[in-house]
Amino acid sequence: MTREDTTALILDTIREQELTIGAIAAQLGRPKVWTAAAIFGQHPFDEESADALASLLALPDEAKASLREIPTRGALEQGIPTDPTMYRLYEVLQVYGPALKALIHEEFGDGIMSAIAFNMDLEREEAEEGDRVKITMSGKFLPYAW
Amino acid sequence: MTREDTTALILDTIREQELTIGAIAAQLGRPKVWTAAAIFGQHPFDEESADALASLLALPDEAKASLREIPTRGALEQGIPTDPTMYRLYEVLQVYGPALKALIHEEFGDGIMSAIAFNMDLEREEAEEGDRVKITMSGKFLPYAW
Amino acid sequence: MTREDTTALILDTIREQELTIGAIAAQLGRPKVWTAAAIFGQHPFDEESADALASLLALPDEAKASLREIPTRGALEQGIPTDPTMYRLYEVLQVYGPALKALIHEEFGDGIMSAIAFNMDLEREEAEEGDRVKITMSGKFLPYAW
Amino acid sequence: MTREDTTALILDTIREQELTIGAIAAQLGRPKVWTAAAIFGQHPFDEESADALASLLALPDEAKASLREIPTRGALEQGIPTDPTMYRLYEVLQVYGPALKALIHEEFGDGIMSAIAFNMDLEREEAEEGDRVKITMSGKFLPYAW
Amino acid sequence: MTREDTTALILDTIREQELTIGAIAAQLGRPKVWTAAAIFGQHPFDEESADALASLLALPDEAKASLREIPTRGALEQGIPTDPTMYRLYEVLQVYGPALKALIHEEFGDGIMSAIAFNMDLEREEAEEGDRVKITMSGKFLPYAW
Amino acid sequence: MTREDTTALILDTIREQELTIGAIAAQLGRPKVWTAAAIFGQHPFDEESADALASLLALPDEAKASLREIPTRGALEQGIPTDPTMYRLYEVLQVYGPALKALIHEEFGDGIMSAIAFNMDLEREEAEEGDRVKITMSGKFLPYAW
Amino acid sequence: MTREDTTALILDTIREQELTIGAIAAQLGRPKVWTAAAIFGQHPFDEESADALASLLALPDEAKASLREIPTRGALEQGIPTDPTMYRLYEVLQVYGPALKALIHEEFGDGIMSAIAFNMDLEREEAEEGDRVKITMSGKFLPYAW
Amino acid sequence: MTREDTTALILDTIREQELTIGAIAAQLGRPKVWTAAAIFGQHPFDEESADALASLLALPDEAKASLREIPTRGALEQGIPTDPTMYRLYEVLQVYGPALKALIHEEFGDGIMSAIAFNMDLEREEAEEGDRVKITMSGKFLPYAW
Amino acid sequence: MTREDTTALILDTIREQELTIGAIAAQLGRPKVWTAAAIFGQHPFDEESADALASLLALPDEAKASLREIPTRGALEQGIPTDPTMYRLYEVLQVYGPALKALIHEEFGDGIMSAIAFNMDLEREEAEEGDRVKITMSGKFLPYAW
Amino acid sequence: MTREDTTALILDTIREQELTIGAIAAQLGRPKVWTAAAIFGQHPFDEESADALASLLALPDEAKASLREIPTRGALEQGIPTDPTMYRLYEVLQVYGPALKALIHEEFGDGIMSAIAFNMDLEREEAEEGDRVKITMSGKFLPYAW
Repeated sequence: MTREDTTALILDTIREQELTIGAIAAQLGRPKVWTAAAIFGQHPFDEESADALASLLALPDEAKASLREIPTRGALEQGIPTDPTMYRLYEVLQVYGPALKALIHEEFGDGIMSAIAFNMDLEREEAEEGDRVKITMSGKFLPYAW
Repeated sequence: MTREDTTALILDTIREQELTIGAIAAQLGRPKVWTAAAIFGQHPFDEESADALASLLALPDEAKASLREIPTRGALEQGIPTDPTMYRLYEVLQVYGPALKALIHEEFGDGIMSAIAFNMDLEREEAEEGDRVKITMSGKFLPYAW
Repeated sequence: MTREDTTALILDTIREQELTIGAIAAQLGRPKVWTAAAIFGQHPFDEESADALASLLALPDEAKASLREIPTRGALEQGIPTDPTMYRLYEVLQVYGPALKALIHEEFGDGIMSAIAFNMDLEREEAEEGDRVKITMSGKFLPYAW
Repeated sequence: MTREDTTALILDTIREQELTIGAIAAQLGRPKVWTAAAIFGQHPFDEESADALASLLALPDEAKASLREIPTRGALEQGIPTDPTMYRLYEVLQVYGPALKALIHEEFGDGIMSAIAFNMDLEREEAEEGDRVKITMSGKFLPYAW
Repeated sequence: MTREDTTALILDTIREQELTIGAIAAQLGRPKVWTAAAIFGQHPFDEESADALASLLALPDEAKASLREIPTRGALEQGIPTDPTMYRLYEVLQVYGPALKALIHEEFGDGIMSAIAFNMDLEREEAEEGDRVKITMSGKFLPYAW
Repeated sequence: MTREDTTALILDTIREQELTIGAIAAQLGRPKVWTAAAIFGQHPFDEESADALASLLALPDEAKASLREIPTRGALEQGIPTDPTMYRLYEVLQVYGPALKALIHEEFGDGIMSAIAFNMDLEREEAEEGDRVKITMSGKFLPYAW
Repeated sequence: MTREDTTALILDTIREQELTIGAIAAQLGRPKVWTAAAIFGQHPFDEESADALASLLALPDEAKASLREIPTRGALEQGIPTDPTMYRLYEVLQVYGPALKALIHEEFGDGIMSAIAFNMDLEREEAEEGDRVKITMSGKFLPYAW
Repeated sequence: MTREDTTALILDTIREQELTIGAIAAQLGRPKVWTAAAIFGQHPFDEESADALASLLALPDEAKASLREIPTRGALEQGIPTDPTMYRLYEVLQVYGPALKALIHEEFGDGIMSAIAFNMDLEREEAEEGDRVKITMSGKFLPYAW
Repeated sequence: MTREDTTALILDTIREQELTIGAIAAQLGRPKVWTAAAIFGQHPFDEESADALASLLALPDEAKASLREIPTRGALEQGIPTDPTMYRLYEVLQVYGPALKALIHEEFGDGIMSAIAFNMDLEREEAEEGDRVKITMSGKFLPYAW
Repeated sequence: MTREDTTALILDTIREQELTIGAIAAQLGRPKVWTAAAIFGQHPFDEESADALASLLALPDEAKASLREIPTRGALEQGIPTDPTMYRLYEVLQVYGPALKALIHEEFGDGIMSAIAFNMDLEREEAEEGDRVKITMSGKFLPYAW
């Protein structure tokens, strides 16, 4: 059972049982962005989480091994997504990419924000003129170090 | 004087006078991510900011008109950036894109995080095992509304 | 049953029963461009419409859940369509894109026409020298607002 | 003097003299979307319009010949635009392309909406919850005719 | 039964029964280039032709509906064909494209040769130094008409 | 003086002196499609034609050598042209490519229509419902011959 | 049975029976490069060769028709091959392409080496410092002839 | 003086003085394909050849250093050439690539034909039905050797 | 049984039996990078290794023939990998490619590091501030030799 | 003075004065791969190195500021290099990419080899059958850490 098969099975189960990823994350005791990424096959589950998820969704035993496998990452079907909800995140990069690079260098010197020692959250921000999506990324600064 | 010429002139001046975008933003009284993006030619300056910037950096008069022009946005030379500091932001999209989409839909229903009614901040987050880059994005949720 | 399977089944049914999307839209009480896009898997159906469509076309029960799922949007197999009927719409963008951008900015200032708070209609326009296709797009103006 | 040079000169003049394309169109007595496209080098000006534009903007004589030349059309620097105002029009094609194709065929049979026998308008549509951009396209239906 | 399935079935039948498209066209009473394109799924058959073709090749009843469906056109697997017989036609466009554009404009003014109100023929041209392929295209001139 | 410079100079001269390629071809005594392609830098001129063209357009002496040089052919700025007049020829290839291939093989066996031992003409075809562009291609059939 | 199926079946049989293409070519009495290309689906077999190959490899009867079919040529999965043995041939084109073009023109005038009236051989060339692969291409010179 | 400048200067000189690369190669005492590739900037000249070429073509002294520089190789403006004379060599790769790979492996085992320990020749092959271009490549076989 | 099928079967077996490639390499007595590449279908196994692997993993007999077949190499699904662990190796090429080229030429003259007469190792390098991945590549220098 | 101008000036100086990057690195007291990458504009020089380099090569004062600027990294003109010396490094990634990924995960768990906390060396390895290029990469292992 490949990871792709397992992912498809999980998404089918979520749709049929009308579950939410948020609720699954709460039951696993893991952050919701991490859990969603892991469900979409972008992170491996550790043994405990794999067992918990499998029992929660009544996945077959073969699914567990694939859940624990370190995946080949990259979730976009094309390099630049066509789906509007995902495209806006790419547009942010097109408009603010060099700005963020310049500010990281001003604040920290030469280096990058790690995408590995990294976490992310998504929250609702209430506002009068309409609620807002708030996305927070936190990554360790890695200085270029020869 | 095109916007590209003005951008190049501003960046030269910053390098030669050893200024920072952060300090310029403070003097203009504008947020630093916005100011950096505007300097890189991704946002127009309003009249007041254009005048302030021009006098701060001793830009020629012709520069002012181009600073106020609404630009054709898109700051990346290629669709997918090669610079590691910018690439990591793209990698975040490759790994977390469908996860964020799913969570936006769970929290808000069908729609997007606006990249227009949008703001962004970048801060240093102190941590024992090494300081972190914290990037916050806040965009109005726009429901699909026929 | 994935959304792709459901779409294929709906299109088969339409072909076999010689239905039209226009008639389906009328029966659902929904606009025809919206209904067509939803049938092609670009919008979710709400519960009522999903039920109505399923009973109209005698779709199996599993189809209903997939009809209500928020899809990953993007209906073109390649970035630039080869089909002449669709290509002409792309050609309009190649010829009139910067013109429309300039006029939106002159009329409204810096911002965009929303493709989310958006609707669209297609009508026959009678004319002596040959009838015309009239396509109307209406999208909320969104000003860049930090 | 190439058409590209003339276009750049016209846009410089517009910026420096703080003109609008709408006002230029009114003075030429031509539709504003057509005028904007022609200014961006996507349509030739006829002799009368070329003369009028040249005298309005005090263009040099060499510019007139290039204004009247039939251009090699295609105004987008990349196949898929990165500028958000133009990208939204591409997004409309990604989401509604097959829907429009199906409805054109239902209404008119096999054929296309011409992009040659074609015109376009852009208007402000007032609305309580925020004004809207209304774009109308009208193209002659061309049936496939062997 | 999708159009792709029907196309594959027709091509199998032609190969097995050692038929020619030319003979099929003659039996349908339709031009051979049109018939070939329709067989390859680029044009719909009208009811009469669909019935005639189905009975000629003993196609199943389900095939008839798909033969009459207006297809999503575009027969090349890649944008630029690798097959030498088809590539030569692309090479003609690379070498003579701007020449043809210039001559169309000199002869007719600003506009295009329609690919919709269009027909095409292919004949053998006998010649001493070796027979030649003669391809004739005829398309209605469409002037740019606002 | 490179061929590109010479081409630009010729096109400038044509525009300024309001000449036509058709008239130039007549004066050189060469076919008009060939002459147009040669002017656009896709064929070398022989000594006599180069001299005739140079004296007709009062080109400088350095231009003659570049006119006689065998060029690196390929006149399209992108692989697939965006200009509508040229795009329609590409569309013909997308719709009729496999049809033409099949018919060439039925008529001649395995091989190609040469694009080298090749000529082309463009004529006006009068018709009541609107004049037509008629393009004729004639290329030697080359059988695959090991 | 499509040509792709037949190719896969032939390659399976070769692997299982530990045959070589060289030996098959010898048995068919055809050149080995031609035979290899034909096996990979790039040339049709004539009736005699198709029968001989089918009986040699015990192919089913349906395979014969597909072997004789003129294929859609183009054997590379991507435009530029990743396999090192094939890539080196592409690298030769990158390094020596313009050199070969210039020398063909010096020796023969304007024209091409035909890839249709063409043959090719591959031999072992013994050498002290290590044997060499010798590839010989011979194609008819085709002068540009209007 | 960059290598590109030097290459352009050499080609200009060749055109103006009506020289041939073949004659230059003979004077340098180097093979003609090598010399042509070196002139197009794909190989460095050794000191002696650089001096000889510079004196032969009366190149300025600065040119010598750039002639001796090891270049960044890759002579094609696009990955796949549009010029027909060069394209045919690419077409050979599309049609015969896997065939050559299979035959190299049958004859030599796992490995490649080197494109570095490599030479190439181009000759006229006289033939009754028309002279032929004969291209010979010889590269050392390199076995995969861990 | 194709090589792809065999690769998938091996990877399934490794996952199910919780084996490591390192342990398999040790049992085969082959280097671990070579063994991993061979398992992923990038190198053929010799008879002995194929038998040993087949018995170790209880592969079916048909798998052996495909293990010994020389593969079409190229393991990346896209030209530029999206997986972060693989992307970093590409990033090294983007940042250090011209540097390595210059240093190879300074040390060895004109030529390349062979990727065929080549081996590679991967080790853990202990370090106080965190262990490091050490990758060593060793390839024979091949001088350009005509 | 942009970084590109400075890089070009440095490379010209190296060519004219027949210097080596190795010798420059020794004089700066910096590793040679780092120095080469910095010269090609992929790393900033610190103040001391910038001064030392500027005095060593007699660079103008304006060059110093650009040498110290943090560059936009990415040294390859195309995503996949055409130069054979650089291409071989890409080929290594195509053949060994998934193998290295699997071995990193086996040895270290889920994570990457950093390309930021990273260094690299290139040495000559003497060998009887021909000297070898030895490239060593050492990067800190970064575990995925939420």
